Amino acid sequence: MFKTYPLFSPEYYMTEALKEAQKAYDRDEVPVGAVVVCNQTIIARAHNLTETLHDVTAHAEMQAFTAASDYFGGKYLDECTLFVTLEPCAMCAGAAFWAQLGGLIYAAADDKRGYSLINSPLLHPKTEVASGILAEESRKLLQDFFKRKRV
Amino acid sequence: MFKTYPLFSPEYYMTEALKEAQKAYDRDEVPVGAVVVCNQTIIARAHNLTETLHDVTAHAEMQAFTAASDYFGGKYLDECTLFVTLEPCAMCAGAAFWAQLGGLIYAAADDKRGYSLINSPLLHPKTEVASGILAEESRKLLQDFFKRKRV
Repeated sequence: MFKTYPLFSPEYYMTEALKEAQKAYDRDEVPVGAVVVCNQTIIARAHNLTETLHDVTAHAEMQAFTAASDYFGGKYLDECTLFVTLEPCAMCAGAAFWAQLGGLIYAAADDKRGYSLINSPLLHPKTEVASGILAEESRKLLQDFFKRKRV
Repeated sequence: MFKTYPLFSPEYYMTEALKEAQKAYDRDEVPVGAVVVCNQTIIARAHNLTETLHDVTAHAEMQAFTAASDYFGGKYLDECTLFVTLEPCAMCAGAAFWAQLGGLIYAAADDKRGYSLINSPLLHPKTEVASGILAEESRKLLQDFFKRKRV
């Protein structure tokens, strides 16, 4: 069901994040997924688990940061890029700041709770940001989820 | 070493948060501690563990939210008050938003990374905020920590 993209392309990694989002969808969680990439290798994968864990801190990004830090045995992720299917919220952007995240690439913008709506810089100044990669696929998954919720 | 205050007073709960901060200090962690109070009862205690866990998300507040949610088996903390020895950062304020935290009481202000420096509201509109309770004690612990670090 997921399209195939060239290995190591941004679309390739975002598709892996979308696969995580699909896992969230299948668990009746708001479908957001993330992967952390370092030296072209995916070192962490996570999806939103706030309902399953009854824990507002269990956003995909937060779990991905924790897992990536665990992989390194260090708390800084300045050599890593986070691919996430939805624009991070203030909490997740705040965590990215502390991790000194190297790169952030998100698919769909979050017009309600996205960190870019905040009138102060939340990310670390060194974090490079890109967005819009497979945004349509991410939005569709989110729309399907909320449509199903309303039925 | 901690002064005794009347049971259920703000100073009583903040002293319990300071005891958590002292535990962080003793582990060579930036000394910040927190307790979550519901119906006058402390339902969660936590202290900063970012170095020990190599995890930037392991702020005292985040762990306290996770523990309190676990206690309730639900993710909302609208009947709870967080007592924390230092003003929360953007990440922790963002988490407090999602938890719809009922009350936030912090001791010392954080002039570098405090959420109140951000030019947009990060907390939930229903969260009642107070500050300054035992601020001097909290500041002293932080100053001692950083002074020790510089030696």
